[in-house]
Amino acid sequence: MRPIEIVTPRQLVLGSGSIVRWAELAAREGWKRIAVLSVTPVWPLLEEALAEGERQGLDIRKIDYTLPGEPTTDYFEQLRAQAAALQPDAILGVGGGSVLDIAKLLAALTDQAGHVSAFFGKGLVPSRRIGLVCAPTTAGTGSEVSPNAILLDSADGEKKGIISPFLLPDCTLIDPALTLGLPPRITAETGMDALCHCLEAYINKFAHPLVDTAALRGIELVGKYLLRACRNGADREAREALATASMLGGLCLGPVNTCGIHALSYGLAGKYHLSHGLANALLAAEVMRFNRPACLERYAAIARALDLPVSGDAGHDADLAIDYVAALSASCGIPQHLAEVGIRAEDIPEMAAMAMNVTRLLRNNPREIQLQDVIEIYQNIY
Amino acid sequence: MRPIEIVTPRQLVLGSGSIVRWAELAAREGWKRIAVLSVTPVWPLLEEALAEGERQGLDIRKIDYTLPGEPTTDYFEQLRAQAAALQPDAILGVGGGSVLDIAKLLAALTDQAGHVSAFFGKGLVPSRRIGLVCAPTTAGTGSEVSPNAILLDSADGEKKGIISPFLLPDCTLIDPALTLGLPPRITAETGMDALCHCLEAYINKFAHPLVDTAALRGIELVGKYLLRACRNGADREAREALATASMLGGLCLGPVNTCGIHALSYGLAGKYHLSHGLANALLAAEVMRFNRPACLERYAAIARALDLPVSGDAGHDADLAIDYVAALSASCGIPQHLAEVGIRAEDIPEMAAMAMNVTRLLRNNPREIQLQDVIEIYQNIY
Repeated sequence: MRPIEIVTPRQLVLGSGSIVRWAELAAREGWKRIAVLSVTPVWPLLEEALAEGERQGLDIRKIDYTLPGEPTTDYFEQLRAQAAALQPDAILGVGGGSVLDIAKLLAALTDQAGHVSAFFGKGLVPSRRIGLVCAPTTAGTGSEVSPNAILLDSADGEKKGIISPFLLPDCTLIDPALTLGLPPRITAETGMDALCHCLEAYINKFAHPLVDTAALRGIELVGKYLLRACRNGADREAREALATASMLGGLCLGPVNTCGIHALSYGLAGKYHLSHGLANALLAAEVMRFNRPACLERYAAIARALDLPVSGDAGHDADLAIDYVAALSASCGIPQHLAEVGIRAEDIPEMAAMAMNVTRLLRNNPREIQLQDVIEIYQNIY
Repeated sequence: MRPIEIVTPRQLVLGSGSIVRWAELAAREGWKRIAVLSVTPVWPLLEEALAEGERQGLDIRKIDYTLPGEPTTDYFEQLRAQAAALQPDAILGVGGGSVLDIAKLLAALTDQAGHVSAFFGKGLVPSRRIGLVCAPTTAGTGSEVSPNAILLDSADGEKKGIISPFLLPDCTLIDPALTLGLPPRITAETGMDALCHCLEAYINKFAHPLVDTAALRGIELVGKYLLRACRNGADREAREALATASMLGGLCLGPVNTCGIHALSYGLAGKYHLSHGLANALLAAEVMRFNRPACLERYAAIARALDLPVSGDAGHDADLAIDYVAALSASCGIPQHLAEVGIRAEDIPEMAAMAMNVTRLLRNNPREIQLQDVIEIYQNIY
């Protein structure tokens, strides 16, 4: 068994209604002034939780996250200046993956010197003195429990990661009730993202038995509940299961991380600014097909976790798993072709070149991927 | 799904040879003076790791843990005075469950006012400013990842718990190589302890789907590897598996905790100071038998996790699980009767009364336990 390092929030609360507990946790940590980062559709869901904070004597300052699309380094620096002026003891981030990534970086970098782009890479954040609480309002990115934050570099338009144990929240509150109002499209895309985190950790070249357990359980939950949540957003059981799957997927990111699907999705998203979940969903089944020769047994285990009618023949069972992922994505109403989302065929070589730059993920892939493979995968789903 | 709160070390490293990484982690946290708590047989295993700390410029001060048997409040106060004189930035605890429990309390209480007995109970530790790294040298207690510390109260001889999120280490290093030299008897007893943590979380009245996944995996690992490690202590694969199982069992302790076996073992150990693992092992199968009416389906799932020849009939499969636990304990050379470990039959009523005081665990038991039930369980294994 190879050594493994797992970083997690010190405290994790999972359950409907748990967002209101942020105030008690902040008080326990001795924080006084809190900068709360969130977005227009979420502020109304936070009324009770913020009122509870004020009852506990906390000094609450709001920072409104207003950028459409993926967060950029330029936008982060704007928010960092706002946060610095507030001199908060802690940041509370409530939102989807972009908001949480920014909240994590605000807590880690607001009182550090240097432009955010100086921290791209692994282990370059020196410490974190500002407290951090994260609460996701989507179920998919896993950002609430991962050491990763992703930004579009305003300098060159590429998606880049900052990875550090100091990006882990002190406390993560996963309140599935915050996701009840998510529209089906976002439910579907973020759910597919959670599936891809689990799937890519499980078939990873650096897979680990300890992480496998979480990954397979996350795959099982998405398989069982994603379509239900897309069809009926108010299905609390489905929302709870997807929030759990998102967390399990996020826990896979630190010690193992993703591979081919994510690398190729960065190629798409760097050029076209598709949502991260949509980019992954577009690619999932086709990258699985490419990886099939290296993953027969693992795909068969996924088919068993998904409770598919397995035969015991690994090739047959692997195909069941691939076909299921394709069918799930389509049933949830997600586009299946690059042309459908406005991508131009002539951009494929440029996108493929961008994907080939994501070496930190490509090296995790169970089958080696060359530039020509990336081009063919993009063409196959065009 | 009921809400669940999970507390974990921020960082967890699992792998043979990982103990040496403590110095790098301490440096990253900015700690300078470290008080290291360990015991005579373990100091030689730490030579390289402590030398590495000195190379990194750390000021290392040793505290020798010399108490035979379970730690008491009086002994803790002695060590606390030693630690206070050193004014450490952090505590590194390396040892079995007793050493780790003391290390956790030293980090949390050395700079607090008040006798340790003032903190018995849940949530009474106000904060922790001293850093904390724990590394287990047995595979069983799970103390390395739990918010619990247990002491014998010198005032009344009862085992009592201090439970607080501030008792979680900042970093836990699980280095299975540190357990290679454990004698078969300690391997067996601590391994049965890990099994009991997983088992009692899984059949718990407050079991949780998220914890179930960890618990079943831990049960599977102990079932597969405990006997191997007892027969050949140098079996690295078995040691790694048991270290993982111990950690999984420890992760169950915070959010769900144990129930009948542990409550009744506190009755035995309060009076006779048996090792914790031995007391649990003596009781495991018999308390399982008592709980059988409330646990048929869960026991059947345990039988499947243990890869026993299940029939699909829950009663039959439940019996397989109970018989397996009894047989595993016996095969590992653990005594099966109270008389064998020197317990006097006339003490049973007093021990039973002591067990009935452990209401924090008894209330978790899937079947209600009365005083007369405890007496009968003790008599049945006398």
